Amino acid sequence: MPTAIGFNPSVHRDRLSRAAGAASERSIEALLITPSPDFAYLLGYRAPVLERLTCLIVSADGAPALVLPRLEEPLARHELGDLADGITLVSWDETDDPIRLVQTIVAGARRVAVQDQMWARFALRLRAALDPTELVEAGPTMSALRRIKSPDEVQRLRVAASAADTAMSAILGEQLTGRTEAEVSGHIRQLLLEAGHDEAGFAIVASGPNSASPHHAAGERVIETGDAIVLDIGGTRAGYASDTSRTAFVGKPEPEFAALHAVLREAQAAACDAVQPGVPCSEIDAVARRIIDEAGYGDLFIHRTGHGIGMEVHEEPYIVASNPELLQEGHAFSVEPGIYLRDRWGARIEDIVVCTDAGGERLNTTSTELYIVE
Amino acid sequence: MPTAIGFNPSVHRDRLSRAAGAASERSIEALLITPSPDFAYLLGYRAPVLERLTCLIVSADGAPALVLPRLEEPLARHELGDLADGITLVSWDETDDPIRLVQTIVAGARRVAVQDQMWARFALRLRAALDPTELVEAGPTMSALRRIKSPDEVQRLRVAASAADTAMSAILGEQLTGRTEAEVSGHIRQLLLEAGHDEAGFAIVASGPNSASPHHAAGERVIETGDAIVLDIGGTRAGYASDTSRTAFVGKPEPEFAALHAVLREAQAAACDAVQPGVPCSEIDAVARRIIDEAGYGDLFIHRTGHGIGMEVHEEPYIVASNPELLQEGHAFSVEPGIYLRDRWGARIEDIVVCTDAGGERLNTTSTELYIVE
Repeated sequence: MPTAIGFNPSVHRDRLSRAAGAASERSIEALLITPSPDFAYLLGYRAPVLERLTCLIVSADGAPALVLPRLEEPLARHELGDLADGITLVSWDETDDPIRLVQTIVAGARRVAVQDQMWARFALRLRAALDPTELVEAGPTMSALRRIKSPDEVQRLRVAASAADTAMSAILGEQLTGRTEAEVSGHIRQLLLEAGHDEAGFAIVASGPNSASPHHAAGERVIETGDAIVLDIGGTRAGYASDTSRTAFVGKPEPEFAALHAVLREAQAAACDAVQPGVPCSEIDAVARRIIDEAGYGDLFIHRTGHGIGMEVHEEPYIVASNPELLQEGHAFSVEPGIYLRDRWGARIEDIVVCTDAGGERLNTTSTELYIVE
Repeated sequence: MPTAIGFNPSVHRDRLSRAAGAASERSIEALLITPSPDFAYLLGYRAPVLERLTCLIVSADGAPALVLPRLEEPLARHELGDLADGITLVSWDETDDPIRLVQTIVAGARRVAVQDQMWARFALRLRAALDPTELVEAGPTMSALRRIKSPDEVQRLRVAASAADTAMSAILGEQLTGRTEAEVSGHIRQLLLEAGHDEAGFAIVASGPNSASPHHAAGERVIETGDAIVLDIGGTRAGYASDTSRTAFVGKPEPEFAALHAVLREAQAAACDAVQPGVPCSEIDAVARRIIDEAGYGDLFIHRTGHGIGMEVHEEPYIVASNPELLQEGHAFSVEPGIYLRDRWGARIEDIVVCTDAGGERLNTTSTELYIVE
């Protein structure tokens, strides 16, 4: 698993500068960014997420500072390379209080923002140490930068999607009966790596009644004839995520299931086709939901239509009824309606789509048909 | 990667009850536990760590409640099994506000504690919603339970350590020259899995000058004769972590390095031998540090001597100068002094040790010698 996932230093200098600007626009005097996708987005490497505080401080005015444990200073210098020149490194020893170091750097600020996934223990300690400074979420600021993907980022998503497609095609060509979900899931993780992912993220194998559980964890159930199977797989490559779902049936599909899948397929395709700049996220959700509703399956579509994707599998923008945000060029997200009949069966079809000026570009290219497997 | 890592339901019922008691002792009316090792410790399964709020609420009085996204309710029921009978499941739909659901459940509490690794975005939103309820860290409460390992937990740590030893022995028997750190690291991850881990967690391969960087990320450097190499590897098996480090030299060791390693080995052995109930954690650190200091390498030992281990690779108790806590039977932790000469070389030796009434039991059993490799 590579730690360095960055672009060239000028890209990261630009991102740091834009983050400072975006913070300033929101009257935020400093962003406190602990190791996370935001941290890697800004600095180009993944620092360990551990109990020792590492915190990048992006001030609305002034050079960034990186508070970090002394034992990780060599790692940081190595990974930052030339980027280190513009960043003040502040190392702390094992018996020091790193919260106090952050406090010294942002002293006097009225408003600072903490990274969304910062551990609550750090956020609570910072809050106490910085009082009466107001602590707000850094999410909106960072997401404003990250939700529009550059051509380089889209290319990384494209390559990751292609690797996921390779793994999906491979598993759908294998015999599945007689194997446990867990065994098939482990095998898919291997296929994801063989297809070029740096990390195998997840491999949902939900068979028979388990296919009605959207986030089912692959278990000891043995796949058998007559099962519906939902496969939902993905990993990361060069720092960017893949995520695709396909549905299969073991043996001749029951007509009722084939009918359900046909509706789902129509809904998923219509939602993909509806993608273009200026369309609200809620409308993409509505397009899929209307078709499923009209076919009488509305109550069985128990989740939103999709989520943004990039360095994280789930990020902004969310394709959900409550999100009025307008799609823009460079938004990348999943379109993945599903229909789930509890304790019986379920189906989901998922592609990653990028919004371009010419409409939606599907990054996943395997057929969305109901696969017949043995 | 298995989601279910639990013991039988009675163990988890007991843990839930003890957590409620430990909270009560601290005048905490409710623990808010998002997906994390604490969550898995209490409920026996790992829920997805994502942007949708999942939150177990352990009230000092009353049955636990689990607030979760509706699409994960089937997963939760499946994983909880019989344990679900004693827990109120509160599902929310995609357009609901889960913070409000938590607020309703803990309404009126004066003091609630949030899980240490809860995302800051949730902690900040809960703080605003629950105001004027005081929000404190759940860490001390949960750690009071988790830091003493049961015999079953020690056995899981033992099996994980043995798997890590198998991988370590295998890699130390291979030719390393001419291979990149990254390639060797990837191979170790495979060896960790083959040896029985469910997940390969990390595989530090720090060669030549990189061996002076304690948390070095394996990179494109090619290993060559004359290199010192620090290997620090581990994964998880049945929910419990392994973590072991050994140091090698490629070809005939330079006398200066051999001398340094001999001091380190003596220090590490002495610290292991000092383990017994009633000894302060700080003293274990001091035992190793004194030997390294007296040999003149004190300034080069730039980190604490160790960390607790269990469901997390790093947890309480920390073996550090600032920790006066007394060792107790069932404490499990690493003993891993290191000596690092910047830009030249470094060495570290790490074993997991369990404190028993008869002293320290080393779970890692490979030799701590300086390995000569090709």
